[in-house]
This record gives sequence, structure tokens and C-alpha cells, in this order.
Amino acid sequence: MKRRIILLAGATASLIVGPLATGAMAQEVSIGEVASAVNSVWIVVAAILVMFMQAGFALVEAGFTRAKNAGNIIMKNVMDFSLGSLTYWAFGFALAYGGSSVGGFLAYGDLFFFDDPTRAGEWFFQVVFAATAATIISGAVAGRVKFTSYLIYTPFITGLIYPVVTHWVWGGGWLSEIGFFDFAGSGVVHMLGGVAALAGVLIVGPRIGKYDEDGTPRSIPGHSVTLGALGVFILWFGWYGFNAGSTLAAVGQDIATPAVTTTLAASAGALGAMFTAWIITGKPDVGFTLNGVLAGLVGVTAGTASLSFGGSILVGLIAGVIMVFSVMALEKVGIDDPVGAISVHGTAGLWGLIAVGLLTSDANIGIQLIGALAIAAWAFGTSFLVFKVIDLTVGMRVTSTEEREGLDRSEHGGEAYPEFVFQEQVARQGDLDPVGTNGH
Amino acid sequence: MKRRIILLAGATASLIVGPLATGAMAQEVSIGEVASAVNSVWIVVAAILVMFMQAGFALVEAGFTRAKNAGNIIMKNVMDFSLGSLTYWAFGFALAYGGSSVGGFLAYGDLFFFDDPTRAGEWFFQVVFAATAATIISGAVAGRVKFTSYLIYTPFITGLIYPVVTHWVWGGGWLSEIGFFDFAGSGVVHMLGGVAALAGVLIVGPRIGKYDEDGTPRSIPGHSVTLGALGVFILWFGWYGFNAGSTLAAVGQDIATPAVTTTLAASAGALGAMFTAWIITGKPDVGFTLNGVLAGLVGVTAGTASLSFGGSILVGLIAGVIMVFSVMALEKVGIDDPVGAISVHGTAGLWGLIAVGLLTSDANIGIQLIGALAIAAWAFGTSFLVFKVIDLTVGMRVTSTEEREGLDRSEHGGEAYPEFVFQEQVARQGDLDPVGTNGH
Amino acid sequence: MKRRIILLAGATASLIVGPLATGAMAQEVSIGEVASAVNSVWIVVAAILVMFMQAGFALVEAGFTRAKNAGNIIMKNVMDFSLGSLTYWAFGFALAYGGSSVGGFLAYGDLFFFDDPTRAGEWFFQVVFAATAATIISGAVAGRVKFTSYLIYTPFITGLIYPVVTHWVWGGGWLSEIGFFDFAGSGVVHMLGGVAALAGVLIVGPRIGKYDEDGTPRSIPGHSVTLGALGVFILWFGWYGFNAGSTLAAVGQDIATPAVTTTLAASAGALGAMFTAWIITGKPDVGFTLNGVLAGLVGVTAGTASLSFGGSILVGLIAGVIMVFSVMALEKVGIDDPVGAISVHGTAGLWGLIAVGLLTSDANIGIQLIGALAIAAWAFGTSFLVFKVIDLTVGMRVTSTEEREGLDRSEHGGEAYPEFVFQEQVARQGDLDPVGTNGH
Repeated sequence: MKRRIILLAGATASLIVGPLATGAMAQEVSIGEVASAVNSVWIVVAAILVMFMQAGFALVEAGFTRAKNAGNIIMKNVMDFSLGSLTYWAFGFALAYGGSSVGGFLAYGDLFFFDDPTRAGEWFFQVVFAATAATIISGAVAGRVKFTSYLIYTPFITGLIYPVVTHWVWGGGWLSEIGFFDFAGSGVVHMLGGVAALAGVLIVGPRIGKYDEDGTPRSIPGHSVTLGALGVFILWFGWYGFNAGSTLAAVGQDIATPAVTTTLAASAGALGAMFTAWIITGKPDVGFTLNGVLAGLVGVTAGTASLSFGGSILVGLIAGVIMVFSVMALEKVGIDDPVGAISVHGTAGLWGLIAVGLLTSDANIGIQLIGALAIAAWAFGTSFLVFKVIDLTVGMRVTSTEEREGLDRSEHGGEAYPEFVFQEQVARQGDLDPVGTNGH
Repeated sequence: MKRRIILLAGATASLIVGPLATGAMAQEVSIGEVASAVNSVWIVVAAILVMFMQAGFALVEAGFTRAKNAGNIIMKNVMDFSLGSLTYWAFGFALAYGGSSVGGFLAYGDLFFFDDPTRAGEWFFQVVFAATAATIISGAVAGRVKFTSYLIYTPFITGLIYPVVTHWVWGGGWLSEIGFFDFAGSGVVHMLGGVAALAGVLIVGPRIGKYDEDGTPRSIPGHSVTLGALGVFILWFGWYGFNAGSTLAAVGQDIATPAVTTTLAASAGALGAMFTAWIITGKPDVGFTLNGVLAGLVGVTAGTASLSFGGSILVGLIAGVIMVFSVMALEKVGIDDPVGAISVHGTAGLWGLIAVGLLTSDANIGIQLIGALAIAAWAFGTSFLVFKVIDLTVGMRVTSTEEREGLDRSEHGGEAYPEFVFQEQVARQGDLDPVGTNGH
Repeated sequence: MKRRIILLAGATASLIVGPLATGAMAQEVSIGEVASAVNSVWIVVAAILVMFMQAGFALVEAGFTRAKNAGNIIMKNVMDFSLGSLTYWAFGFALAYGGSSVGGFLAYGDLFFFDDPTRAGEWFFQVVFAATAATIISGAVAGRVKFTSYLIYTPFITGLIYPVVTHWVWGGGWLSEIGFFDFAGSGVVHMLGGVAALAGVLIVGPRIGKYDEDGTPRSIPGHSVTLGALGVFILWFGWYGFNAGSTLAAVGQDIATPAVTTTLAASAGALGAMFTAWIITGKPDVGFTLNGVLAGLVGVTAGTASLSFGGSILVGLIAGVIMVFSVMALEKVGIDDPVGAISVHGTAGLWGLIAVGLLTSDANIGIQLIGALAIAAWAFGTSFLVFKVIDLTVGMRVTSTEEREGLDRSEHGGEAYPEFVFQEQVARQGDLDPVGTNGH
């Protein structure tokens, strides 16, 4: 084989297209071929960006939880994508986009054990969305769920729960038929993931130490704000692929407008959450502000291509505000979601579906609510069932000894930061104020 | 809605372009539409890369400063982009690129509260540049500036100071008229940010402990070389969008040459800084080497599309060398810039403007100096004024108690790494050598 | 200069292509120019993604080794790219792809001190591959090699060892002539790097403390699983550029299929390694699973464009399994490779070459083995020779005092995490259980 590229360098360079590796100069090329290539480049690049969101989720979830569980969170994030992509290859894609629809509920056809290169770009773009839906759950159940049980659950969401909903909305299914609108997945991906996370949290219960004996919630701060923040930046970065890539093509499409609304909504979400938390707690909290970015992104996703720019700011701002209230309300009622995933993805996702109904002509608010309810009921019901069955058989939760020790050691036989000294160790020795009196 | 993609898979696949979501197959597509799509893909992808530089700045600034201020740095970086993009939406873009020019000094016209989808790509590409200029300041004033005061300043640079200069140079203003040349922003973005940072540092003063009683500077090492280095890699990665994206189009443009000069200048900058520091300090210092990469990138930015490849190496090498001397000189005269932002962006940015005058025919050295002087005077004057007014009203600096405690706790009510034990805590207890005698 | 973009926003927008900066509207544009632009965008974006893999390598190597050497690893990763790109500019590119071939062994011609803008895209794509080959070695010799010696070696691999092999395979040389096939570099890049790493490890020997007096290997866990994992995610992300970008063009090429096989093989690699380690060690080990991702990626690289999707899963799965056995076998025979680079890149790279011979019609298994042997012999022989000469002159290894102290302090005069307290320090003081009894 021979591998050479000759690219245009300046407007006057001669026309040389196609790889010279074939030995033949592609002298003739049609507009259609070039247009297809542009679309392919756009979709593949967008999907690569979305894939990188896996790193963002891993860091957000690890950074905003305890150090003793960081390796476990990494493992869950690696495995929900890995197991998920194989499941999506085996049957998820077929159930969402296969040849024929079974009553608008799910597809059935020719895509099982997917092996059709002509649909490779499509599969790649869809699988990274499926992985996003799956990975949302990981953070909500952090710190107390058995690794094996998580492994058992994850193929269900990537292979069945999520594909069915995408068939409803994007595969020509019944929600599509009645006019439900969700451009890039505020509901299909994020609310679905958030609601499934809620089911998981209800089954698995709060972490030890999250609540006082009288039920007062206690803060369990994350071990690395910098890693968590980097995760948020990576998610923001990848979200451009998520939203602007959902044009599904570049030729004849406006791929820039979603980039603008995504930027503005994320920004407004950060402001909305920061000021809300500032008013309530007296300080501009770092965690809430970062989650405000994510809430803004989730909120704008449904209407990213059709909202006005001012409208996207409004949507992001409100998403940031309601996320803070949602986090506080859930904590109060005993739902322990260490990273705020249910509020960021579930609550803000629901808001995104409503907002596109209120602010654009693409969607009808009544139908949006019907769709939201249907997605939520399906995602919650199926996830609750699967988690319950796992709980009754394998067990969803580690022992309290394992939980106190940390999942890294008990589940994976190692530690994430074996060289560093931790406050808890020192506190046990009694020779250092565990909280510190004067900062670090 | 229905969401399907069909992409070309192999040269023989049939022509199907445009999204099938519309239900209509776009059978006819013009060369112009395809060319526009290529340009859109390129500009949007480039802008996404530049947006990711925000993560790079956040990590460089956090990693190279104290752990007790890491959350605060994250907040400043999130908020200067968030507030900045809303400001740029409201009036920054209008002042730079609005309909008519007020005497070549600033634009005025139809882009206030920007809502024109036909210019979405343009806005997106410009806003990430504006955010880059703004975020440079954050690191220079790290560890002692009030969060609120920083929040007040940041809309001024994104909404006024930077847009005016872009109007001068890229919006058809007076510097453009006289032939000033700055392809991707060595001066317009980086020197401007560096000079504004200098104004901030002069107002806010050095950190407690930076200087001995006799004025001898002391080293305050950063808390995480790995995070700082990751930030540098992210900046390098994003810089390809910054420089090669500044072609503003792909069709008829050479987008590869800027990628090559960017690579070579960054590499040469690393070498130049490493060997300079090695000669002076006796060791190949990690921080200087990493800043050398950034200095090389800043230096090549003005001439990235027109320098010869050998020329770009020369420019990067010199940028790396002078950055080291600049850092040392500033430290000596009492200017405490914790991350070297003034030298990396200001000094190397000035060098970039000069270099393109010396080494290419695009620019005249005299006019380059006039432009550099004008930009520096404007950025310094306006920034100094704004910082001074903030200082006299709200106050620029936290109290010394807050500074010692760390801004994370005093300003944000939390800590970046609450589980880890820090040397300072142990030193206070008197039972561990704070510096260690044998490393870790 | 004036800088304005007008992009298509919606299918009905008027045709405006090319930058308006030139003042001239490009009213006429040919299909060829547009096709060239698409190819350029694809190759440049792919190369940018591959460049970012440098950050992935840096984090994997730093995260999976000791904290006391983290800054040194950063420096090696920055410098092998920096020095490497300058070397590749000066002569590496010429030796691989220069005008005429010297007997199919190396090229010789017109590309020394590369200065041809028409081949800028090609150079950029190739240099990031060269840097990948070089940086593989860094992790394998981590913790005990002299920084200066590493600096001396790195131009040899980027400037000579790697370019010669690329000439053989991708530059029309003798392996290309006999039909050896390696689409994106399982052998040319990864196995080559892994074998060169083996030569380095054999010369430099195991780290102090790696083996008991009776030769039993001891585990030296890395200092940050989160940074290591982030590195793996970044590598995975960048690998899409590596594999799908190796189409070298977008027009008339299928760029989506390599993205799919890359995704599936990485996923299967993670599973293969996790379950293998689980069976052997009793736990799903984090490090092995992450290395499984990388092994899957390395394995699929040779056949990424031609394997069936099911085939890519098989290739990735086996890559993950054999990587675990390879790591264990090498450790047992006294080869101390702190991050598993020899197994991940060398062993899985060899498997990739074989797999494409077994599973596709692109390659003949006999010729694949001849090629693998030739590449391995060349890479090992030349690297061993260079390392040996360095060892006999400058010395390859730091003193045992320096090694114990950590290379950050001894080689670079600083520490990566100067504010944190480490177990080792506390253990020396005798007042804290160094291992902890109850986790952190």
C-alpha cells in the first residue's frame, strides 16, 4: 500500500482530489459525491465530539464525589460505553431504526448484529447518543451500587429502553406521528437518563452519612473541583457535536445556529444557577454554577435549532434556576443524587421539552407534555423494574463495610490515589484537625 | 419528527444529501451550497476548538497556582466566558462588526442583541476569540482579587475593550486602513489580554508572601503540574482552530499551512524556553517549558498563514526565549503574575506583531509598531481605569485573612480538595517537615 | 486587513463563498476546489485529533506512575513532540516521503528542511503519527531514565527509525511492494513504538523496588487513576482521527466505517481485558480495563477500514485478552514496563497485523508476518543500538538516590504536587499507617 495525500494549498493549486493511494487520480467527481463527503465529515466529527462527552461525564462524576470511589466511577463510565456500544451493535440500533416499525412502538428488521457499511455514519452518530443516556445514571448511584449490578443494568438502557424511545421520536414511531418535537434530545436522551437515574436512586437509597438521624441532609463534597470542572468544560465542548450535529447533515443545513444557542444557553444557565445559589446560600457556589452550565445545555437541546438567540438565553437561565431548586428539593425528600444528575438531566430536560413548545412553532405544548410523560413513564417503569429484579437477585447495594471502605478497594482491589494522605486517615490517628481551621 | 442520516459509504454509493428529516430528498444541490457547507463546517469546528481553550486556560491557571484558590479560578474562567458571551451577544459584536463605522474607531448598527441567523457562524467564531482575550487576565490576578470585582470587570473587556480593537483591525477600522496586519490575533487577542492583565496586576498588587521584606521574590509553586500541563496541551490543541480557523473559510483557502506553522512554533517555543531556563537556573524547568509552548503559539499567531516554515520556527524559538526573560524581569520589578500571563500573551504577542513585519511582506514594521502601541495603550488605559474605579468603589482585593485562608473558602464557601491533607496543615501541627527532606 | 465571514444559514441563503477578507467575492468556484477543501478540512481536523493524543499519552503515563515523576513525564511528552516535530521538519519527512526511493529502503529528495506549502496538510498529518510512535517509549522507561538521555534518543525515532518504516510501508518502499498491509499503523506506529520501548527497558532495567530480592514482582500503583483514565479517553477520542483520518481524503472515501470499527474494538478490548483480569486476579481491575481499551484500539488500527464490524469486535476482544497475558508475562521475566506500553502497543500491534491477514482479503498472513518481523527487527535493533551508545556515554539511568527522590526534583528542580502530603513522608515520620487500614 502507498499512502500519500495531496491537498489544496491556496486557491491556485491544481485540482487533485481523492487519495492517491489507489494510484488513480480521481479526475472526475460529482457534486453529489462532494456533498456526501461534506455531510460525512460533519456527522463523523460531531459524533467524535459527542463520544468525548464520556470523558466529561466520568470527570464530573468522579470529581464531585469521594476519592475512595473515583476508580469505580471511571470503571462504570468506561463499561457503560463499552458494553453499551456492543449492545447497540447487537440489537439497540435495530430496535430504534430497523426496517419496519411494530405499531410505532419499536422497530424490527435488518439491523441486528449491525453490519451495513452504508449506514456506518448513522450508527456511529446514534451510538454515542445512546451511551450518553446510559452514563447519566452512573453519577446518581455513585458510591454505593455494586459494580456487577451496574454492569447488568447498562445493556438494558442502551439496548432497549433508550432505543425504544428513539424509535418513538426519531425513528418514525408514534410520538413522531403526533408531532412531538425534540431536536437533539432534551427529553429523548437527557430526561430519559435523569428519570432512569431516579429509579436507580430510589432502589439503592442514600449513601451512608448523607442524612443525620433526624433526616437532615449533610453535604458530602466532591474530592476534586478541578477534575469536575474539566468534565463540565469537556461536556460543553462535546455538546456542540450533540446539538449542531443533530442537523444530521451540513449541506443545506444551518449548523451554526445550534452552536450559538448552545453557547448562550450554557452561559445563561451558569448565571442563573450561580445567582440563585448565591441568593439562597450567600455564596457563589462552584458546584451549582458548573451544574448550571449543564442545565443550560440540557434545556436548550430540544430547541437548539429553532429558538431565537434571546429565547435560548431565557431557556438556559430558567434551566439554571430550576436545577438549583430541584437539587435542593430532592435532597430534602431523601433522594441522594451525589452529582445532581436527576436535576441536571431530568428536570432541565423536561423544561427543555416544555420550552420548545412555549417559545417556538415547532412544537405544541400539549403534545410536548404527552411526550414527556410517555418517555418518563417508560424510562422510569422499565428502569425501576430492572433495578428491582437485580436488587432481589444479585443485590444492588454493596455492604456498609464496603461502602465505608470505598468501592475502589472493595470492588476493584485498588485505590485511585494511593500515594496521597487523606483527612480521614489523619483524623483516625487523632493528630490533625480533620477539617482544618485555616484552610489548606 | 424523523431523524435519519444516510451518508456516503464508498465511492459508489448513491447520492443522497440533505437530511431526510424533511421528508424531501434534496436531489439538486448547487456547487455554491456545497461550498458554503464546507466553509460552515470548517468555521464551526474551528470555533468549537477555540471554545475548548477555555478549559485549557482554566487548568493552566489552576494548576500553576495554589490549591486553596483552584475553585475560584474555575469560577472566574466559567464566568468570564458565560458573562462574556452574553455581553458579546448584547453589544460586543455590534461594536466590532455592526453596520457602520464611527470614524474607524468602533462600529454601530444593527447587531445589538444579536438575532441574525445568517451571521450565526460569524458570531460563534468571534465570541470564542473575545472570551480568549478576557480569560487571559484571570490567571495574572489569581489568588487575591475579589470574585465580584472580577465579575464586574469582565463585561468591559468582552463587550467594549476587545470589540473596539477588533473593529480597528478586523472590522475595517483605522488600523485596517493603514495596513496593520495581525492574521489570527497575536496583538488583537493576546497582547491585548496580556496588557489588560498588567493593568490588573498593577492595581491589585502582589500576593502576600511573594516578596521578602527586602523585596526578593519568592517562588510560589503551583499545586498540580499535571493539570497545568494538560491545560497547555488543550490550548495547543485548540490553537489549531484559532490559527487555521482564521482563514475564515476552507474553499480556496490554505488551511494546512497555519497548522504547520502553529506546530513548529509551539515546538520551537518549548525548546527555546527550556534551554533558556536550563542555562539560567541549571535545570530544565517544567513550568517555563510549558509556558514556552504557549509563547511560541502566541508569537506565531499574527503570521501563521504567511510565515515560511523555517520562519515560524525562528519566531517560536525567540518567543520562548524572550518569555523567560520577561517573566524574570517582571518578577524582579515587583509585578506578581502567578502564571506568567503577561509575558506569555503580552510580550510574546508583541513579538508576534513585530515578527510578521520583519519576516513577511504582509506587514510593515513601522505600522506594526504603531498598531501595537495603539492596542496596548487602549487596552492598558481602559483596563486600568475600570480596575481603578472598581478598586475605589467595591475594592479589587480580598482581605489578607481571606487571601491566607484561600479564595475557595472565603469567596465560595468550599474547598477544591476537601479530602486531601496539605503540607500547610501539617506544618501548623508541627509534626511533619513541611518541605520534606527526601521528596515524596 | 478586514476579517468577515458569511456562512450559509439555511438552504435558501445566497451563495457567498470564500473569505470576504480579500475584498473579492469568489463568484466562481469549481467542484475540484470544493472537493479539495473538503479533503483538507477532513485531514486537518483528523491530524488535530491525533495531535491531542499527546495529551492522552502524557496523562496515561503520569497517572499510572508515581507522583514524584509526574513532571518529568510531562516534560518527556512535551519534548518528544517538540523535538520530534522539528526533526521531522528537518529530515524525517524527507526520508519517508522524499522524491526518490533508495532501493525501497528510504526516500531521498526534496523535502529536507521542509518548506513546501502544497504539502502542508500531508506533513501535518504525518508528523502527528511520528510523534505518536515516539511518545510510546516514554511511559515504558518512566521513573529511572535520564531526561537528557531521553532527549538524545527522541530525534532518532522521529527523524530516522520511524520515517524509514513509513517509507517501507506507506512511501512506496519494499514492504509496500510485496503487499504488506497496515491501514493506519498497528505495526508501523504502535508495534514499532512498543518494540523500541522494549529495547529501552532492557537497557535501562527495572525500577528500584519493582522486584523483591527473590525476583518476585511487586505492584507499584500509579498515583492518579482519574488522570490516567482521562488520558485513555483522550486517546480514544484522538484515535478517531488516527484511524478514520487514514483514509487521507473524504471525497469518495468511507470515513465512517473506521469510526465504527474503532468504537467496537475499543469496547471489546475493554471487556476482554476486564474479564481476563477479573478471572485471574478476582477483581475487575481498573488499570487493566483501561489498557484494554488501548489494546483494542491498537489491534484494530491495521484493519480499521476493511474489517467487518463483527470482525472488529473479535480483534478488539482478543487484543484485550492477550494484552493482559503479555503484561503478566513481561513482568514475570523481569521486564519492568510501568504503564504496559510494550504490551499495549507492541503485542496488540503485532496482533493487529496478524488479524488483518487472517480476517480480511487486504492482506496475506505470510507477508504480514514478514513485515512484522522486519519492522520489529529494525525498530529493536536501531533503538537498542542508540540506547546502548547513550548508556555507554551519557548514561541512560539516573542514580539510585535521584530515582528514590523522584525525577521531578532531581532532574527538574521542582515537584508536581508540592502542597500535598504523601504517604511516604508520613511513613518516615512513623505516625501514620502508610497503607491505611480502612481506605481513604
